[in-house]
Amino acid sequence: MASIDIDSAVSAAPRSRAPSKSAQIENTQANSVAQRYLDVRNYSEEICAPLAIEDYGLQAMASTSPAKWHLAHTSWFFETFLLKPYAQDYCEYHPGFEYLFNSYYNGVGGQYPRHQRSLLSRPTVEEVYAYRRHVNQAMLSLLESKAAGESTDILTRTELGCHHEQQHQELFFTDLKYCLFQNPLYTAYDTNPLPPAHKPDALQWRAYGGQLLEIGHRGDGFCFDNELPRHKQYVANFELADRLVTNSEFMAFMADGGYERPELWLADGWAVLQASPHSPAPLYWVQREGEWWEYTLHGLVRLDPHRPASHLSAYEADAFARWMGCRLPTEFEWEMAATISPAAELHETSSARPAVHPESANPVGSLWQWTSSAYTPYPGFKTAAGAIGEYNGKFMANQLVLRGGSVATSPGHYRHSYRNFFYPPDQWQFTGVRLARES
Amino acid sequence: MASIDIDSAVSAAPRSRAPSKSAQIENTQANSVAQRYLDVRNYSEEICAPLAIEDYGLQAMASTSPAKWHLAHTSWFFETFLLKPYAQDYCEYHPGFEYLFNSYYNGVGGQYPRHQRSLLSRPTVEEVYAYRRHVNQAMLSLLESKAAGESTDILTRTELGCHHEQQHQELFFTDLKYCLFQNPLYTAYDTNPLPPAHKPDALQWRAYGGQLLEIGHRGDGFCFDNELPRHKQYVANFELADRLVTNSEFMAFMADGGYERPELWLADGWAVLQASPHSPAPLYWVQREGEWWEYTLHGLVRLDPHRPASHLSAYEADAFARWMGCRLPTEFEWEMAATISPAAELHETSSARPAVHPESANPVGSLWQWTSSAYTPYPGFKTAAGAIGEYNGKFMANQLVLRGGSVATSPGHYRHSYRNFFYPPDQWQFTGVRLARES
Amino acid sequence: MASIDIDSAVSAAPRSRAPSKSAQIENTQANSVAQRYLDVRNYSEEICAPLAIEDYGLQAMASTSPAKWHLAHTSWFFETFLLKPYAQDYCEYHPGFEYLFNSYYNGVGGQYPRHQRSLLSRPTVEEVYAYRRHVNQAMLSLLESKAAGESTDILTRTELGCHHEQQHQELFFTDLKYCLFQNPLYTAYDTNPLPPAHKPDALQWRAYGGQLLEIGHRGDGFCFDNELPRHKQYVANFELADRLVTNSEFMAFMADGGYERPELWLADGWAVLQASPHSPAPLYWVQREGEWWEYTLHGLVRLDPHRPASHLSAYEADAFARWMGCRLPTEFEWEMAATISPAAELHETSSARPAVHPESANPVGSLWQWTSSAYTPYPGFKTAAGAIGEYNGKFMANQLVLRGGSVATSPGHYRHSYRNFFYPPDQWQFTGVRLARES
Amino acid sequence: MASIDIDSAVSAAPRSRAPSKSAQIENTQANSVAQRYLDVRNYSEEICAPLAIEDYGLQAMASTSPAKWHLAHTSWFFETFLLKPYAQDYCEYHPGFEYLFNSYYNGVGGQYPRHQRSLLSRPTVEEVYAYRRHVNQAMLSLLESKAAGESTDILTRTELGCHHEQQHQELFFTDLKYCLFQNPLYTAYDTNPLPPAHKPDALQWRAYGGQLLEIGHRGDGFCFDNELPRHKQYVANFELADRLVTNSEFMAFMADGGYERPELWLADGWAVLQASPHSPAPLYWVQREGEWWEYTLHGLVRLDPHRPASHLSAYEADAFARWMGCRLPTEFEWEMAATISPAAELHETSSARPAVHPESANPVGSLWQWTSSAYTPYPGFKTAAGAIGEYNGKFMANQLVLRGGSVATSPGHYRHSYRNFFYPPDQWQFTGVRLARES
Repeated sequence: MASIDIDSAVSAAPRSRAPSKSAQIENTQANSVAQRYLDVRNYSEEICAPLAIEDYGLQAMASTSPAKWHLAHTSWFFETFLLKPYAQDYCEYHPGFEYLFNSYYNGVGGQYPRHQRSLLSRPTVEEVYAYRRHVNQAMLSLLESKAAGESTDILTRTELGCHHEQQHQELFFTDLKYCLFQNPLYTAYDTNPLPPAHKPDALQWRAYGGQLLEIGHRGDGFCFDNELPRHKQYVANFELADRLVTNSEFMAFMADGGYERPELWLADGWAVLQASPHSPAPLYWVQREGEWWEYTLHGLVRLDPHRPASHLSAYEADAFARWMGCRLPTEFEWEMAATISPAAELHETSSARPAVHPESANPVGSLWQWTSSAYTPYPGFKTAAGAIGEYNGKFMANQLVLRGGSVATSPGHYRHSYRNFFYPPDQWQFTGVRLARES
Repeated sequence: MASIDIDSAVSAAPRSRAPSKSAQIENTQANSVAQRYLDVRNYSEEICAPLAIEDYGLQAMASTSPAKWHLAHTSWFFETFLLKPYAQDYCEYHPGFEYLFNSYYNGVGGQYPRHQRSLLSRPTVEEVYAYRRHVNQAMLSLLESKAAGESTDILTRTELGCHHEQQHQELFFTDLKYCLFQNPLYTAYDTNPLPPAHKPDALQWRAYGGQLLEIGHRGDGFCFDNELPRHKQYVANFELADRLVTNSEFMAFMADGGYERPELWLADGWAVLQASPHSPAPLYWVQREGEWWEYTLHGLVRLDPHRPASHLSAYEADAFARWMGCRLPTEFEWEMAATISPAAELHETSSARPAVHPESANPVGSLWQWTSSAYTPYPGFKTAAGAIGEYNGKFMANQLVLRGGSVATSPGHYRHSYRNFFYPPDQWQFTGVRLARES
Repeated sequence: MASIDIDSAVSAAPRSRAPSKSAQIENTQANSVAQRYLDVRNYSEEICAPLAIEDYGLQAMASTSPAKWHLAHTSWFFETFLLKPYAQDYCEYHPGFEYLFNSYYNGVGGQYPRHQRSLLSRPTVEEVYAYRRHVNQAMLSLLESKAAGESTDILTRTELGCHHEQQHQELFFTDLKYCLFQNPLYTAYDTNPLPPAHKPDALQWRAYGGQLLEIGHRGDGFCFDNELPRHKQYVANFELADRLVTNSEFMAFMADGGYERPELWLADGWAVLQASPHSPAPLYWVQREGEWWEYTLHGLVRLDPHRPASHLSAYEADAFARWMGCRLPTEFEWEMAATISPAAELHETSSARPAVHPESANPVGSLWQWTSSAYTPYPGFKTAAGAIGEYNGKFMANQLVLRGGSVATSPGHYRHSYRNFFYPPDQWQFTGVRLARES
Repeated sequence: MASIDIDSAVSAAPRSRAPSKSAQIENTQANSVAQRYLDVRNYSEEICAPLAIEDYGLQAMASTSPAKWHLAHTSWFFETFLLKPYAQDYCEYHPGFEYLFNSYYNGVGGQYPRHQRSLLSRPTVEEVYAYRRHVNQAMLSLLESKAAGESTDILTRTELGCHHEQQHQELFFTDLKYCLFQNPLYTAYDTNPLPPAHKPDALQWRAYGGQLLEIGHRGDGFCFDNELPRHKQYVANFELADRLVTNSEFMAFMADGGYERPELWLADGWAVLQASPHSPAPLYWVQREGEWWEYTLHGLVRLDPHRPASHLSAYEADAFARWMGCRLPTEFEWEMAATISPAAELHETSSARPAVHPESANPVGSLWQWTSSAYTPYPGFKTAAGAIGEYNGKFMANQLVLRGGSVATSPGHYRHSYRNFFYPPDQWQFTGVRLARES
């Protein structure tokens, strides 16, 4: 591995977010792991650039974390799983951080209560950036060290740490949007105006023939443990929509009394509706003088009928599908379709960072799509030994799989075998609806 | 259909529970539907015979219903779905009952709040029995009528109503046990002593080869909509235990710190444990002077190490399996095994009503077994039109499938394709653990 | 003390509620303590006579207790504080009852959770009546014994136990009304129709001159510890209404937007209104096709504008008073007025048990009246030693004093110095409003 | 009124907190109202000087407000009640602030949900300071204007606004301490070490003779509406401790099982203890390796036995008093003692801002003392017309009066007739215990 000038690499972390070298992660295979590490780390800081110091601490519900906490926790991950076990003479940055920035790794130790993360005014934002620099310098030393050359664990874990940080980059957008929405000033994270959306073509159905097929990650590249092992699955004939449901389609559902008709709803979803004090609508819709507006990371904008309906719970997605006489796809149907017709599905990301709001109803890279599949282990699933094994497996209860990536997904992070997972009532993720039906 | 003497048939409903004709539902095919109807209806009353009037109203949590409510609701089902639409000149028994005894059928109308059912001191127990007689007489008239001969709907719905009532018979035992347990007097429902349990043989593993197979109900007999359609499913190689986990095995898990080791638990299950004010143990276990006792419907008894561990949540079942280096079976594995080796698995029920507590660790008819399968529709699943379509489908979220029947299951009610479903934290069902593993 | 035929006295407990000897407690001083004891004990059973067995177990919220529990707890009081310490060779009726029927006496031991009392189907109603008979026989033996002649404690505590049981008689009505109201069948406890109410005279103000006066119980008769010591209190000039607020007056408040105007409400009261899912109205008011009805223990009746407005919280009472430009009286003003003009205020109770619903707006014996006085100890207040000292003192926080008695108060139980106490949001007590103002 | 150089006066707001001119508010009567206004406004900013930007947004429970919110709300008060009604051509600073920074004045309009104030990352701290400057300039113009000379309302309301802001200065310390305590880093607000505490003298009892006396504010100076009208109250003989209870005395209570003995506790207080998941101790006490430490605004320090026991709830204060065979004083007893022996009680505040932690057990200026008096209106109490009338009166329910001021009270803000009020379970106020007893 070629030597990298640590100081300049680290200190040069650009703080402006618009088109930058680091976003152009064109070919991670070709780059060194160290370069990959730096690119990912710098991107986390780039996307924070528009924040005021005050924004870094927001936590509007237990499920969301402050931006500052994301920045610290991702550093903690490298410190805990790479630096402490592998870096000779590594000096822990602060004895209190192991507790404060552990998310849920019981194997490492106790955790500061999740719902109270906004109460951590200290360390300050500046101190967290200093923590990041400390970790970066130690990581770059480690990656240049002899140990790294001899241990595949170090490179493998660094790769995992990079993907872990990319997940938190996505959560950064997801959580921030939810938090800023609580303030009636409806602050824009990105002050660039949203590009106009084009009217999507009429929804087309694509038919797929039943077959016994292989599901799960294929090949040598990185994937999370939950995408393995690749295994056989029988999928019967089905049809899948070629694009996501749009706002105008969802408004038709609402106009037809969709939220008031219990026969369209799963019982648990209906119970959520009845218990809510709000009149039902997608999470970020705001009604003003009879018109619908939508809160986006670009501010409050008029609801655009052509954009895909976003931030729906699985219950809303399911009710809409039922109203259409359709259903949600299984994750296997979704993956089969993506694998069979990749050209048609694949989303081309331009090099410039696009708006953090879906422009098109494209099923890849626009909005995560709820599937009807429970998030359960693939046959023969194995977790890693030790605390790092808590990464995915222990969440395999009560959640549904989502597929397809979104505008908030970090460049280069997505795969067709990727299994995202949320609870059915969750609305704050960038989620949409793709319809399926029997053929 | 031969005429039945309605008055004597109805009024003769035996009130004692021990070995009775009605329990010997040997061959429903051979009996007339009317006889089948009467047998089921009478059995509901038989199993209530040991109750004091005061016991009929108990409701210890929202998920449980008072015995009186079960008796009334099952009558409401026949009144709503058979008598009102099909019986000429049927006179509704009481205008308030449609609201009071509707469980969850939004298509019929509003419902009295579920968690408040214990507040319905009126109608009294006596009045509910009168309601049952009124419905029985009208149902027998309907089944003898010309309409019944001409409409398959009437017979089909009557059959459904009978299976529905059998489900409530099972819930009767399940709910009653939970309610009586709240009273430190630990009243026995059945004062007969529990027969001794035999020490089960060492657990044997049976191996099954991977294959593409058909899952779901086969044949002409009755089944619930959720067992259909029969469809293809690929199941990989696996091994399945030939019996359930015993109390002594579960005690070994506890002795090994099973409840204190987060690495054995799903995150949601661990959260349930941490939130509980009680020291963890299976639901009905009671510690007295260092010894474990167990509350059963036969009263508080010393915990028998040879009986199957019962009333476990899916989280407890999963943690135990993980501790054993195993896992829970999928519902497909379970059904495949039951179909391939039916002789070995089938439980012989003697004609006398056995104890309402599992005697053996037999995987059929002893305790329902948690599977790792989410309760979701089979491919191509269809619900019936109208309110009756709310029977099963709308609960297909957040629950897991259980298989195998239990000592509380009504005679003749069970099938190998039967899909019971509960939420993972639920403990009050008669549930146990059957282990699976990769082969 | 003359001998009483125990068996006939106890077993003759009349079960019908209408005009009975026992209700005519004309002169307790003149009767023996034993007779007094029997009268009170029999009255508890008389008022239960209209109940179905199923009604005995109702508990609609933690603050209310089932009728059966009242019957058992009042017996427990005599068993715990009289029979166990004083009766030679007394045989405890059941070892489990000390725990089940202890209300809140930590000095005696633990208590079955209050909010779960409806789960005690056992002991049955019949068994509780047997418990009462057992206690009655032992109490009558004790009162006839030599010990009673020598110990003033026995007579004093028996007197306290009788007043305690009378308090529970009042709670019986209060709690039962709340419980029956939860059932949309609106069952009548008393099937006698309500006598018509007369239109009250226009409200008159009575002026009282400021003075330093004595407050608290005077004389030798029984009183609760919280009515003592009699002490000096300065009361400034004030005026007090000569009758309670009527339904028609409260409807005028509602018509004027009383429930929607925050400036009329205490902040805590306004918060209660905002948090409630119901549209605000007095507790038992039911709107049907634009007309107001009221649930009473005599069933659902049209709201009578002439009756006093009842079952108001202190917040409602205070808001109404503010709307009138008035205020609630202090407990000292109330007692001063009652003492100065007793003839005008005193309510004449006829010998026949009247309807359990206020007929007149008379300030004594109709409805308890909220005062603005916090329930705090009088200067120099002392509690008794031991568990019996927990009777009143420990509740002197967060509650307000009510004065005046109600139609649910047992005959002979009321005194002008009586201090009843409830939390400001409580509505299920028989409460009304009496206005005061500066003069 | 002499002209003030607005720009220099406003912009010169010193940001360091130590000994400053502005703290020396020696004689407000002699200063102009404008000078008084500036002094108070500047002091709010001085005490914020040690904060990091991140600290300004902390809100650890609904009852506490972020420092930034206090700064904005106090400006809103002047804008709403002075500038909008009285200042000609006043230009509202921001249309959204009326909603965001209204605390509880329904007469003004709706309010942003109190428990979500930490979610207001915008306006930023810098923007809030700009808002303050905008309001200050307009206020100084108004106070110099002809209108101010002609309207006593303007001066009266400005005076109220200053006292209002001083109340929020005290809440600033109270709330900040609670928020910083949630972070295990235990950050010090004031990095100056705490001066040592001197061992207090043995507690002395002072006896006061019963008498009819005048209670409430006397004279022409400012007071809040709740201190009026001055009125007659009879107070019986009593004795009052000459100092507060110390930590060592409270530790003796704990060592004697004070927290485990229900007979010492009010029922509501005992319920709070039982419902808490924590082992009971005063709010800021932290146990480390068997030793008690205490969190203070000067950081975590060893618990000093000589300092007064602080941050106790009224329940803890009452239980301690009961354990001592004493009781809490009434607010009338407290005021009588303070009035009779002012020299002995008066606390001499040095000109330098002292530590924000009580040094001595002096009953004035050290810790607020719980009284047993409910916070209710004095006879004849009147509120102001309009929204400003919501200031105090609507909170007169469920709270207790506290007397005496504390180390967090702003210089010049305290009076012997001052009535502070909190709910009995509240612990986060600077509260202590002063004992009373019958003489």
